Amino acid sequence: MTQSFEVLVIGGGPGGYVAAIRAAQLGFKTACCESNPYADPRGEPRLGGTCLNVGCIPSKALLHTTHLFEEAAHDFAGQGIQIGEPKIDVSRMLARKAEIVNKLTTGIKGLFRKNKVTFLAGHGAFVGQTANGWKVMVGKEEIEAGQIVIATGSRARHLPGIPVDNTIVCDNVGALDIDAVPKKLAILGAGVIGLEMGSVWRRLGAEVSILEVSGSFLSAADIDIARETQKILTKQGLEFHFGVRIDAVKTGRKGVTVTYADKDGKANKLEADRLIVSVGRVPNTEGLNAENAGLKMNERGQIEVDAHCRTNLPGVWAIGDVVRGPMLAHKAMEEGVMVAECIAGQAGHCDLDMIPAVIYTTPEIAWIGKSEQQLRAEGVACKVGKVPFMANGRALGIDAPEGFVKMIADARTDRILGVHIIGVGASDLIAEAVAVMEFAGASEDLARICHAHPTLSEVLHEAALACDKRALHF
Amino acid sequence: MTQSFEVLVIGGGPGGYVAAIRAAQLGFKTACCESNPYADPRGEPRLGGTCLNVGCIPSKALLHTTHLFEEAAHDFAGQGIQIGEPKIDVSRMLARKAEIVNKLTTGIKGLFRKNKVTFLAGHGAFVGQTANGWKVMVGKEEIEAGQIVIATGSRARHLPGIPVDNTIVCDNVGALDIDAVPKKLAILGAGVIGLEMGSVWRRLGAEVSILEVSGSFLSAADIDIARETQKILTKQGLEFHFGVRIDAVKTGRKGVTVTYADKDGKANKLEADRLIVSVGRVPNTEGLNAENAGLKMNERGQIEVDAHCRTNLPGVWAIGDVVRGPMLAHKAMEEGVMVAECIAGQAGHCDLDMIPAVIYTTPEIAWIGKSEQQLRAEGVACKVGKVPFMANGRALGIDAPEGFVKMIADARTDRILGVHIIGVGASDLIAEAVAVMEFAGASEDLARICHAHPTLSEVLHEAALACDKRALHF
Repeated sequence: MTQSFEVLVIGGGPGGYVAAIRAAQLGFKTACCESNPYADPRGEPRLGGTCLNVGCIPSKALLHTTHLFEEAAHDFAGQGIQIGEPKIDVSRMLARKAEIVNKLTTGIKGLFRKNKVTFLAGHGAFVGQTANGWKVMVGKEEIEAGQIVIATGSRARHLPGIPVDNTIVCDNVGALDIDAVPKKLAILGAGVIGLEMGSVWRRLGAEVSILEVSGSFLSAADIDIARETQKILTKQGLEFHFGVRIDAVKTGRKGVTVTYADKDGKANKLEADRLIVSVGRVPNTEGLNAENAGLKMNERGQIEVDAHCRTNLPGVWAIGDVVRGPMLAHKAMEEGVMVAECIAGQAGHCDLDMIPAVIYTTPEIAWIGKSEQQLRAEGVACKVGKVPFMANGRALGIDAPEGFVKMIADARTDRILGVHIIGVGASDLIAEAVAVMEFAGASEDLARICHAHPTLSEVLHEAALACDKRALHF
Repeated sequence: MTQSFEVLVIGGGPGGYVAAIRAAQLGFKTACCESNPYADPRGEPRLGGTCLNVGCIPSKALLHTTHLFEEAAHDFAGQGIQIGEPKIDVSRMLARKAEIVNKLTTGIKGLFRKNKVTFLAGHGAFVGQTANGWKVMVGKEEIEAGQIVIATGSRARHLPGIPVDNTIVCDNVGALDIDAVPKKLAILGAGVIGLEMGSVWRRLGAEVSILEVSGSFLSAADIDIARETQKILTKQGLEFHFGVRIDAVKTGRKGVTVTYADKDGKANKLEADRLIVSVGRVPNTEGLNAENAGLKMNERGQIEVDAHCRTNLPGVWAIGDVVRGPMLAHKAMEEGVMVAECIAGQAGHCDLDMIPAVIYTTPEIAWIGKSEQQLRAEGVACKVGKVPFMANGRALGIDAPEGFVKMIADARTDRILGVHIIGVGASDLIAEAVAVMEFAGASEDLARICHAHPTLSEVLHEAALACDKRALHF
């Protein structure tokens, strides 16, 4: 018998599962289908998508363990904590990571039960339109649904001539399961994943070289943030090569040889035990049978949507990495909520300019709004408040004086236009900046808000004061 | 020759030095006097007050070191970090703490130079009124100033019959310099200082017993927070005895014996190597010659002030711990800025209801606004969103799943009335809540703001969603 739902969400990642939960909360009979088992030992499909299974969550688990390892090795003595030389048990580290992932992916099943979302195991593929919606095959089962939300996410971009086996040559999936510290690790791509994975293995002792085709670094970030990041990570031991041209990657049983031309065109060779390819991600639209259904795509392989994530097909929506905008879990979640509320006739809304970005290096990096170079290009007159964590008592207290907060406000109206943080706790500190910007707040507003002492949030407060040249602690 | 200033600030703590810097920024010829050398080896007066020298900053340094020690001892193995049994070098731990304090207190001298504040070594005492202001003795020097800001702070309350030698029986000063881990540590008072210092020494192996005269615990906190705190800290090994009556404290060369009646009136005896007395603080008004100048005090020994910190004397202001309101460094700083701006004829403002409170235990505790019991007593109809850190991916990733965020919003208007956090990062997470409440935000506002994933700030976001019974991840 054909099962019938009011809403079918195709894909169980952060965008998809959130869309399904919100739709069910709004009273719709809702199903969510997923086919990817990721690392499930029984091969059963797992909820949580790339983010939870092979992205944000496991990488943060490894970043935490290796941060502690580094702290133990380098900072404990100065604090009077005496330990022997720390050693890493990589298999235990990976097992803990897997436990966290298991707990959370199981947790989403619980959330589905609580919110009465039906989970369907299988890949969703359009069959065709019906009188009241769409017919979709999920695995071998035929499903009918009035509204379809496509949330199929993305996967790592692979490069021609560089086959990924996820043992010697890894994308994000294999990079999270490297089972021993490589002596030498090569990374293609100096983006977020390259920096985070490079940090993990560098902390455990690997020599890490990052090759980047582009001549610039973190071009989406504010230029001061990008420069400081490069300076700090280089000091930590990451080796960067920008503006390279990859000529060939030869994989053997024990490692890889990357031949490349450096920025001056000079031929170079990099030998490494492992190679991580982190050169961007591509939307997952295969197997949807979307073309036959008439779904409109763009030249980048993304599904075309309007501001409310409506596709060109009636009752079909698409959210997250499979559409335009930043490929971030929290952006997908926002769109998931929006679409569910739009289906319910509410005024769903998602402002792509108000999606914070985070990189979980040490120190962390986070920003919201526009960078100084963007604003300069737009001809907006700005004032800038820039205050280092070095001036903050809490940052000193936790041995984390690196980095700064840079706040940019409109020179005329004082409205905050961008906040750019590199420093300990940036991932959480950015939340206050987003909130104040959502209220169209001025730097003066933030400067007038009492911030607890001693906290890291005081650096944000000082940056707001600095916009008016009246920092108190710097 | 009598030196003359437009503004003289008496006291170089957080309230005083900030008032002086802001006054100087506003163009006033400003001086700040301080007489307390704290731990200065040359006996020279030090800036930063209790907070920086013997309060917030050194306690946070010790809390950080001992938190790492605890983490190393208990959590490293599960993460695959292999170390020998960690040992603590207390003298190194204290030396690091002293280095941080030195750096910051020297830093304030630098801020004085940068902002052109004159530092005067010596205690300030009123001599009398002049045509244009006041004559004040600072040490042996006579100073004239148009405006006086009293920022003399507070000191630990001592109890009759319990002499504090800061070796065996310590207040906040000695508690930060205990030179070896006590086998048994007794603490009088289950307030912020008692909990923080108890945590420090418990983590290093001390058996810690806390005696509290009151029958209730953290009565300023929301009742759910107080209960959770007691539960968690008890599990960590702190032993609480509430509703006691202290009968006698006998101090010997090697320790103390506290005899007390427990809550049922039963006689008890507690023997310990050290005793910390943390039973509140009293305003510092001695030596100001305030009575002769006619300065009005209240029955609690505080200087009487209006909402703008004006005293009854013309051109005399008082801020911080020496006046009404919470005894918190950031409250004093807010008042310091307000007074400087009022002197400059600006509209200075300090809302005592918008001062966040923080306790730096593990997990941290922070709150802003009203507690559920306060609101209930006022007859305000509320809705509550309460979400545990256990449901947060980042909290799991950093092995910190304890605690929750409790948000309280007006049932009718949805305006946020209180946010109460116990959990990792609470000290910084509270900043977003304060900001949204300063904008008179509703729980719906916070729920509509995109929070980066995976971050701890998502728990705040979920608590806002939970106010409307539409949490996505719980």
